[in-house]
Amino acid sequence: MRVLITGGGGFIGQKLARAIAAEGVVAGQAVSGLTLVDIAAPEAPEAGFPVTTLACDIADPGAVNAVFEEKFDAIFHLAAVVSGAAERDFDLGMRVNLFGTLTLMEAARAQGNCPLFVYASSCAAHGGEAPETVRDDTPANPQTSYGAQKVACEYLVTDYSRRGFLDGRSLRLPSVTIRPGKPNAAASSFMSSIFREPLQGEAANCPVGEDFVIWHSAPRTVVRNILHAAALPAEAWGTNRALNLNGRSDTVGEMIAAMTRVAGPEAAARITWTREPEIEGILEGWRAKVDSARGRALGFETDESFEDSVRWFIEDDMARA
Amino acid sequence: MRVLITGGGGFIGQKLARAIAAEGVVAGQAVSGLTLVDIAAPEAPEAGFPVTTLACDIADPGAVNAVFEEKFDAIFHLAAVVSGAAERDFDLGMRVNLFGTLTLMEAARAQGNCPLFVYASSCAAHGGEAPETVRDDTPANPQTSYGAQKVACEYLVTDYSRRGFLDGRSLRLPSVTIRPGKPNAAASSFMSSIFREPLQGEAANCPVGEDFVIWHSAPRTVVRNILHAAALPAEAWGTNRALNLNGRSDTVGEMIAAMTRVAGPEAAARITWTREPEIEGILEGWRAKVDSARGRALGFETDESFEDSVRWFIEDDMARA
Repeated sequence: MRVLITGGGGFIGQKLARAIAAEGVVAGQAVSGLTLVDIAAPEAPEAGFPVTTLACDIADPGAVNAVFEEKFDAIFHLAAVVSGAAERDFDLGMRVNLFGTLTLMEAARAQGNCPLFVYASSCAAHGGEAPETVRDDTPANPQTSYGAQKVACEYLVTDYSRRGFLDGRSLRLPSVTIRPGKPNAAASSFMSSIFREPLQGEAANCPVGEDFVIWHSAPRTVVRNILHAAALPAEAWGTNRALNLNGRSDTVGEMIAAMTRVAGPEAAARITWTREPEIEGILEGWRAKVDSARGRALGFETDESFEDSVRWFIEDDMARA
Repeated sequence: MRVLITGGGGFIGQKLARAIAAEGVVAGQAVSGLTLVDIAAPEAPEAGFPVTTLACDIADPGAVNAVFEEKFDAIFHLAAVVSGAAERDFDLGMRVNLFGTLTLMEAARAQGNCPLFVYASSCAAHGGEAPETVRDDTPANPQTSYGAQKVACEYLVTDYSRRGFLDGRSLRLPSVTIRPGKPNAAASSFMSSIFREPLQGEAANCPVGEDFVIWHSAPRTVVRNILHAAALPAEAWGTNRALNLNGRSDTVGEMIAAMTRVAGPEAAARITWTREPEIEGILEGWRAKVDSARGRALGFETDESFEDSVRWFIEDDMARA
């Protein structure tokens, strides 16, 4: 099993690569090689099989086709221009999130082997006409260009799968927190930074109120669920390859209290509270409560508490840094 | 008001052009010019304003940009590779239905005037996980490449509208019957030909049983509804620019009985009944019952009977031929 991860330099890509290196198995088959691509060549994990890292802009068809000189059995497509950035630069979002994904799907199709294709979509698919609690049969109505680009690709992933061009699975990821690294251009960036920075002795601003509800999942859980998505048989997905992935709803205040229970009261005192209307404008279009009955039935994991996320961040990420 | 119709040589494009020529008004404003484009230059209606007809393959960005040397205030985008053809030739469907639509939207955006953009989507958006009766909040789950391409574009039309690049309205058209002309590569082609050919003394085959239910609307009604979609204010559409358009559910048997009531028993006797599994395979993925509450609330018209459709075909199309 030859594996490709796009966005392999991102935090989920890196954690997924390390998990695959540690387990040596994807979808029940031994991994014989792993290729990580990103705008800059990503860091390679230690692994018992060859790991290749390449710089590749997925918006550049020539660069994508060069990566596909090798043949892959499983493709994890995580590369994206995130929500805030795609909102600020529409053309960049279209180039990477829509056309880049289509280029990748065409390259996967051209292999002729119907590879596994796990696509990182987003809970930003929901908003607008969606009810307060999103269910499996709630139509997507994204209120960001990022969300619209993701949903358009989900429909094409489902169609490419129906036709046997690839074996797709699209996961609408909750906000992944606590994310390691630096703040980024995602509107949800603060959902990690208000924990990550204070836990490491630094200040961070919360642009929304304490009662703001977040739909979230921990990086460890998300990586396990991405691997579970690849391991499920095609039949389990039926006629719709897109899924609202399991997550948790908690208020910012509840999440800060969980951090305090795990790591003491000093961290919370480092949070500042300046409202940011641009962020709030984007978030108003999202939904924070999702009933993922189908995800639970398919065996995806759900976080049991935000305390776990805090502990895992300390174990997995602060220890590494 | 300068108006562009793509697919202007098709039967809906021609009827829409004649309606605009007759009324001289689109969205409450006087029309000062009409451009019809299609693969071959379409026929121009008699009109009290200049009518331009051009050959333009919307899959060719250079050809589209040449059309947009003129600036349009309203664009009716009807051009498409139909369901059966897009199922047989995936790449052609993607080139025209997805990339062609995106090229057109970019050209419309580049004008800088946020033109009206009425997009002909299709009830082929529904199927798969959809319940037997489709409602306004039923998520699209197309089971053809044509449907997937249409839905992907609907999401982008909504996003382009949210951003103010154009003022989009996507109508998921029922099967339009009785359509004039020749049978085509749409899986729904028989839904017209089993009436059109027998009414004109010719045989036609029905590839499904008498109890097969069709979700349909007459060309006259569809053209009026397309013009109504353009006339509604942007606010009426809210955060979702795609709509299941009003239609009727009737069985093939009921529709044949209606034809007999209007035109006598000879026509029905000319129908042959050889089942066609390829057609049935595509149709099984569709839905034949749609509750278009939103469409009714927005003032779209609903056919009162299939007798009307038969009468209108005789008046509008047999008289013309």
